[in-house]
Amino acid sequence: MDNLNINKHISAQYNAELESVRNQVLTMGGLVEKQLTDAIKAMNKGDAELAQTVIDNDQKVNAMEVSIDEACTQIIAKRQPTASDLRLIMAIIRTVSELERIGDEADKICRTALEKFSNQHQTLLVSLESLGNHTIQMLHDVLDVLARLDIEQGIQVYREDKKVDREYEGVVRQLMTYMMEDPRTIPNVMTAMLCARAIERIGDRVQNICEFVFYLVKGKDFRHVDSESLEKLLSDVTPPAQK
Amino acid sequence: MDNLNINKHISAQYNAELESVRNQVLTMGGLVEKQLTDAIKAMNKGDAELAQTVIDNDQKVNAMEVSIDEACTQIIAKRQPTASDLRLIMAIIRTVSELERIGDEADKICRTALEKFSNQHQTLLVSLESLGNHTIQMLHDVLDVLARLDIEQGIQVYREDKKVDREYEGVVRQLMTYMMEDPRTIPNVMTAMLCARAIERIGDRVQNICEFVFYLVKGKDFRHVDSESLEKLLSDVTPPAQK
Repeated sequence: MDNLNINKHISAQYNAELESVRNQVLTMGGLVEKQLTDAIKAMNKGDAELAQTVIDNDQKVNAMEVSIDEACTQIIAKRQPTASDLRLIMAIIRTVSELERIGDEADKICRTALEKFSNQHQTLLVSLESLGNHTIQMLHDVLDVLARLDIEQGIQVYREDKKVDREYEGVVRQLMTYMMEDPRTIPNVMTAMLCARAIERIGDRVQNICEFVFYLVKGKDFRHVDSESLEKLLSDVTPPAQK
Repeated sequence: MDNLNINKHISAQYNAELESVRNQVLTMGGLVEKQLTDAIKAMNKGDAELAQTVIDNDQKVNAMEVSIDEACTQIIAKRQPTASDLRLIMAIIRTVSELERIGDEADKICRTALEKFSNQHQTLLVSLESLGNHTIQMLHDVLDVLARLDIEQGIQVYREDKKVDREYEGVVRQLMTYMMEDPRTIPNVMTAMLCARAIERIGDRVQNICEFVFYLVKGKDFRHVDSESLEKLLSDVTPPAQK
């Protein structure tokens, strides 16, 4: 995050505080990435023990959200940030909330899968490995984008979600044919459907994080803009004057 | 929102600004409530025209989110709020984000239902009227809680979500039996399932808004706390000293 003028405050303490929340967000991102990777692995391999570990660790993610939020509110109250510092804090508050929700999806995947394992000791009807790995990669990349504030990579990650959506639709279509051919598969199909849906939603959340980075770097709100207009806007907007 | 010391600033302009975002949030809440009410009505009556109106109006909800967020960021930068003013701003930023997501669910209900109407000109397989009305009531009540900062009513609204969850589970179970009895109903069941899921999620979002109000009034973060501990915490915590 070095192309914004962080680390340029007269108060060394203020610098240290901003640096600290920055690092905490990236640490939280790393933890959420691990949670998601483990969730996909547990779901694919039918590993009930690993699924339980993910569920147990979700409270760590939650605790990090609350603690980073608290740190951000403290900085606003004490340091009264403006311009790019304020945008950094706002972007962090929003990012942390999305990361927590991604953690929730990982938890949900494990709960759904675990219920299935304990009932029938079997794996899912379809492979969600490719869909899962795709979103893990998106999450990994957006954390990079966040660390380096790289807008171009951000646009690439943002675009990936369309592919995840298409892959998800393919999975749903496949699952529907199973159900129609043999109604006895319905409970299994529903489990796979819930897991697939949770994975697909992670792509949307990663897109949101991209938008917060665009806001941070470009100083303009890019939410609710369709993807073509988004690219045009990003190329048009010059970063606001730094102070 | 009169039991916090809003309206007590020396600067009349600052008072007016806080008052204005307060009002904007309640206006946005009213719009989202109307969107949800119309979405449920369109879905139940098979009213394609009304569904399209809801879809068209979603951009108004989105625009309000961006504009209120912008106003809040301006206030932080210009007025450097602390204590209860800062909590008010943070609670508003978070509430607005949840309201926007509720608006998205209303939009999603209409898109799902509309696709169905245009294919087959028929209504849903099961009635989602009761589930829908239950969440409309929850949204209506939480806007009241937000306007009056009434913690006791907040706890009641918070508790309602358990009933919505149970109702949703009942609907899902009912839909599963349809599918098993006659696989030809599967596409219709999937539509109803998607609508029911969207409605159920609104209950969770209303719960989140309750937590923001608790945070605002009590000065403590109540997220990720289970509902029994929540009540204990709420009764234990005294509001922070006002300054």
